[in-house]
Amino acid sequence: MSTQRFSTKPPSGFRDFIGQQVIERNLLVSRISRVYRSFGFEPIETPALENLEILQGSGGQENEKLIFKTLKRGEKLTDELGKSPADVGALADLGLRFDLTVPLCRVVAQYQNEIKLPWKVFHIAPVWRAERPQKGRYREFFQCDVDIVGSDSIAAELEVIQAVVEAFNQVQVSDLVLHLNHRSLIEKIGDKFGFGQKISEFAILLDKKDKLPFEKLKSELETLLGSRLSSEFESILQGELPFEDLKSFCSSSYQSLSYMMEELEKLNLSLARIVFDPSLVRGMGYYTGSVFELRHPSAGCALGGGGRYDGLIGRFSKSPIPAVGFSIGLERLLLLLQEKQSFSDELSVLFIPVMNEALRGDLFSIAKELRANQIAVDVFPGEAKLKNQLKFATSRAYRWVLLVGEEELQSGEFQLKDFSDGSVTKINRQKLLTHLKRLLLPAK
Amino acid sequence: MSTQRFSTKPPSGFRDFIGQQVIERNLLVSRISRVYRSFGFEPIETPALENLEILQGSGGQENEKLIFKTLKRGEKLTDELGKSPADVGALADLGLRFDLTVPLCRVVAQYQNEIKLPWKVFHIAPVWRAERPQKGRYREFFQCDVDIVGSDSIAAELEVIQAVVEAFNQVQVSDLVLHLNHRSLIEKIGDKFGFGQKISEFAILLDKKDKLPFEKLKSELETLLGSRLSSEFESILQGELPFEDLKSFCSSSYQSLSYMMEELEKLNLSLARIVFDPSLVRGMGYYTGSVFELRHPSAGCALGGGGRYDGLIGRFSKSPIPAVGFSIGLERLLLLLQEKQSFSDELSVLFIPVMNEALRGDLFSIAKELRANQIAVDVFPGEAKLKNQLKFATSRAYRWVLLVGEEELQSGEFQLKDFSDGSVTKINRQKLLTHLKRLLLPAK
Repeated sequence: MSTQRFSTKPPSGFRDFIGQQVIERNLLVSRISRVYRSFGFEPIETPALENLEILQGSGGQENEKLIFKTLKRGEKLTDELGKSPADVGALADLGLRFDLTVPLCRVVAQYQNEIKLPWKVFHIAPVWRAERPQKGRYREFFQCDVDIVGSDSIAAELEVIQAVVEAFNQVQVSDLVLHLNHRSLIEKIGDKFGFGQKISEFAILLDKKDKLPFEKLKSELETLLGSRLSSEFESILQGELPFEDLKSFCSSSYQSLSYMMEELEKLNLSLARIVFDPSLVRGMGYYTGSVFELRHPSAGCALGGGGRYDGLIGRFSKSPIPAVGFSIGLERLLLLLQEKQSFSDELSVLFIPVMNEALRGDLFSIAKELRANQIAVDVFPGEAKLKNQLKFATSRAYRWVLLVGEEELQSGEFQLKDFSDGSVTKINRQKLLTHLKRLLLPAK
Repeated sequence: MSTQRFSTKPPSGFRDFIGQQVIERNLLVSRISRVYRSFGFEPIETPALENLEILQGSGGQENEKLIFKTLKRGEKLTDELGKSPADVGALADLGLRFDLTVPLCRVVAQYQNEIKLPWKVFHIAPVWRAERPQKGRYREFFQCDVDIVGSDSIAAELEVIQAVVEAFNQVQVSDLVLHLNHRSLIEKIGDKFGFGQKISEFAILLDKKDKLPFEKLKSELETLLGSRLSSEFESILQGELPFEDLKSFCSSSYQSLSYMMEELEKLNLSLARIVFDPSLVRGMGYYTGSVFELRHPSAGCALGGGGRYDGLIGRFSKSPIPAVGFSIGLERLLLLLQEKQSFSDELSVLFIPVMNEALRGDLFSIAKELRANQIAVDVFPGEAKLKNQLKFATSRAYRWVLLVGEEELQSGEFQLKDFSDGSVTKINRQKLLTHLKRLLLPAK
């Protein structure tokens, strides 16, 4: 007899999902995936682990520090440990991906002879980041990425934004606000207000805008700058730069953003608003052009975001290839949906208790026939008193119970109990299938 | 301009999947999942990473040696490396799961107050093993597990076997042979032929039966035993123990296996045969009772296997809880299906080239309306000559192309090109939807 010696919780920052939670997650993934496919995007799937050299120095900025690294194995590990002092960097060779963009770029580089550009591609999968666990922040979470590789046209931005807005639509999320900005503008702002050499630290801080109280952000920026912030800069920080002012401030950004906004307005997407947000950065250092984010009034943070990363593929490939992508955060979307309403994929299951082991074979045959007609059937998988079997049915919230004993098998008259009102109906075996289809299958 | 400095291949033993490969994998997963649900099994999802103490010593035997371990982070890592000599065991705290059974047992222990037994549960997810990469053996692969927790009745075995056979059926795999054995029998055989103290080494070797040539297996067993194998033992090794001989040899195994075989025969599952296989072990040391495997004449190895593991949950929980499970190996099944026939989820996509950027908005509206009616549409996501856009369509094997220029928009007469024969049909905008539905959507 053993006793429990250690925690059976999932590791800190990780989660277990059971039953309905899994069904909802999968339903969401399949709906998003269907929308992406309806735009002609092709799916890819890449390994959870990548060679560390792929993940490191990829422009993932802060996220690169959060890579879960896996130890080398066998002799290679022993060799490294034999060195004194041991080199931390050399102990690990692989790491869990921290996003889906870096693996996509590796895939483009690796298969560029087979892939025809422009390539419309999507990727829905978990990513891992060794963040300090805290409420609502997980170390394993799903991203639903959609990308266009090999097009430097704004048409590509329009396409990924449309696909993502439509995906939200298909799961009944509207009233989204689309925030837009341009990396060149961020650099211009950084330059103008004196962050020149410290532009990437500046961008990293700016990206924490949502997580930090404004005063804290301000003081960190002032520390970085070594002086107080100007009031003009403060109002930009608060998103108060009027879009028209951008024209003189940074004309290239103005041109491309204004074209994008015009075209987006024409599309009549089901968005609450499209706004220019000069303080929007998006964490990844690999963005080079437009950046965007979808926000919802009921969600504290962005539901998705993305941008153009024209330089990243060139890190892996001989020739630079432009690309733009948009990623939906699955957990944030789920959180929003759970607050709004139940989002489910109900399946009515017929329960059949086993009153006598000798009858199990007959019950299995009945179940098999029903399943062949799309009716889900749970035959009690053990030996227990009828009372306990019915308790089992109740604990699973099963509504319909088919009672079939020896007598019923002989007479061909079965009993169907409805747990919702306790009523029992007699049904002839011949009519069973038709009757149950009507009760248990969703109307077409 | 950067140049490629490192390999962009996936890490050794890992794979990338693109387009149709992903679609096939997902289709298979969704079909198997639908069958499991139709039996009343509930899904679970657990983290990729588990605390190492959960994975180690769990009876995973050989597989425990193959755990990908992740390095501790921050100070904890620095502290360990500061110790001299560094303790390999203390450098890592988490590991990627090597199967889905150990995580399930942890989940049962953790949520035992909420879970009502018997619990019918399934889990479809990747697992990772740091095996020496070789043909057909991957370091990341999917398992499709179905388990019944809390029932010690053979009814549970019958239920998981039925569900798995039905899952194979639903993907058009029949002619499977079900191999059955019992752990007690393996122990009795081990005892009888002198492996007494070395029973687990004996079982590990026996499990390699498929991977080793018979003579090699024989010599390794002889080395372990320290003497030559008897001819009786050799015939058992070759699966030649007649089932009736089991009666005197190990009566408890005989009783439970014969009941199981009788009941399985009655179920009339679409199996080619059900055979007693005294040399069947199944690698995991956690099995305690029946063990089984599904084999197919065209596959070199088992397509799935499982057994009863009544002791494993007790490792994590105060009270022991019996359990039985069956796992389908997704990659082996895919390999078999690919050999047999194409297995696909074709989606016809309509291609719309953009002949003039000014028209893109109008084309987007047309695409939006069609997508709202289940027609997948790919509007070319860049700026290119019509000739190159049509090349793009051909490279994607798109059959239908909708040609809409300024003239067509004004007249409302569109052109639909069929790449299969090069024909072009004129269609009025009013009739477009009906026409395309007939051509592109599968008949109901």
